[in-house]
Amino acid sequence: MKIITISREFGSGGRELGKRLAEVLGIPCYDNKIIEMIAKENGFDEQYVANVSERSIEAAYPMTIGHRFAMPPLQIMDQSIRVAAAQRQIIENFAKQGDCVIVGRSADAILEEMHPLNLFVYADMDSCVKRCMERAPAGENLSRSEMERMIRQIDKQRSQYHQMYSDMKWGAKEGYHLCINTSGREIKDLIPALAAYVQAWFGE
Amino acid sequence: MKIITISREFGSGGRELGKRLAEVLGIPCYDNKIIEMIAKENGFDEQYVANVSERSIEAAYPMTIGHRFAMPPLQIMDQSIRVAAAQRQIIENFAKQGDCVIVGRSADAILEEMHPLNLFVYADMDSCVKRCMERAPAGENLSRSEMERMIRQIDKQRSQYHQMYSDMKWGAKEGYHLCINTSGREIKDLIPALAAYVQAWFGE
Repeated sequence: MKIITISREFGSGGRELGKRLAEVLGIPCYDNKIIEMIAKENGFDEQYVANVSERSIEAAYPMTIGHRFAMPPLQIMDQSIRVAAAQRQIIENFAKQGDCVIVGRSADAILEEMHPLNLFVYADMDSCVKRCMERAPAGENLSRSEMERMIRQIDKQRSQYHQMYSDMKWGAKEGYHLCINTSGREIKDLIPALAAYVQAWFGE
Repeated sequence: MKIITISREFGSGGRELGKRLAEVLGIPCYDNKIIEMIAKENGFDEQYVANVSERSIEAAYPMTIGHRFAMPPLQIMDQSIRVAAAQRQIIENFAKQGDCVIVGRSADAILEEMHPLNLFVYADMDSCVKRCMERAPAGENLSRSEMERMIRQIDKQRSQYHQMYSDMKWGAKEGYHLCINTSGREIKDLIPALAAYVQAWFGE
C-alpha cells in the first residue's frame, strides 16, 4: 500500500506538489475534499470547518484573543474536538481504501502505523511570499510584511495542530523521509523524479 | 555546471550515496581523495590530515581535553589552519574543473557562490549504529553505547567544522535543497530517482 503524506510550509507549493504527484502516480489526492466531506456529513458550515481544519483549537476561536485564559464555551469546544476527531477518522478511512496522497492535516502522525512515506515541502520566505502573491484571490491586497506575518502565523497553527497527534516537532526533518526545498523552483519540474522516488520507496 | 554537495550524519550512508550518485551521473566524486591530495602536496602525514579534515581545530587536538582554555602551540595551530585553507582551495579547484559530487568538508558553504545542489543525508540512530557496526574495521569492538557516543561526537565535529564557513546551522533543512532520510533503506535503491532529481534540478 502506497500512502504518501505531504506536510508543507504555507506558500511552499506543497499542495500543488501533492496534486501533481498523485496525478503522475495515478492515485487520488485528498486535500480540501476531506473538509468538504466532514462539512457534508456533519452539517457544519464549510467555511467554519475550513477554519478549524488546520488550526489548533485555540487558534480557531479568535474571540479568545486578549483573553489569554478564557476558554471557549464548552459546547463550541466540543464541536471543534468533534471536527478534529472526524477528520482523523476520515483520513484513516481514506488510507484504508488504498494508495493515496494526503496533504496536510497531520496525516503523517495519524497514519504512522500504516508506514506512510512522509514528505515535507518548504521554501525560503521570499519564495513563499512570491507564490502567495501570485495566487492571492482578487481583492486581497496584503503588503509584503502582512503576507510574511500571515505565512508565519499559518505555519505556527500547523505546528500546533500537529502537536495534538505527535511529540515529533512539525517541520523537524527527523519526522519525514524526504524534505524538499522548492525555493525558486517550478514544482512541475520536480515531479517525475519524486514519483520515481516514491516508487523506489515502495519497492516498485 | 552540476556541482552536488553531500553533507551527512555519520553512519547515514551519505558517502555511499555520493559515490553511487556520481557513478550514475558519470561525474567524479571527491571524498578522501581530497585529503590524500593535500597530504601529498603539503607533505603532511595522511593520518594527521584525515584527523583534522572534518573536525574543528580544537577537536583535532585531543591534548587540550581537560584544559578547556588551553590553546595548542602557535605552530600547530598554524598548521591546522593551513590544512583547512588548503582543503578549501582544493574544493574550489575541483568545482571549477567541472561537474562533480563532493562529500563533506563543508563544500556546500565553501561553494555557495557556484550554486551547488546541496543534499543532506541523515538517518535515525538505530540505522546509523547498524551501518557503522556492519562497516567497522576488523578489531574495532565498540559497544552499542560507545558507538552512539562516537556518532554524536563526529556529527558534533562536523557541525563545528561547518561553523568555520557558514552561519547556517549544519543539518538544519533550510541550508539544503533536499534532505534524505535513509533509515532502514538500501542506498542503492534510492539512486536512480535521486539522479533524476539532480538532472531536473539542473534543467536537463
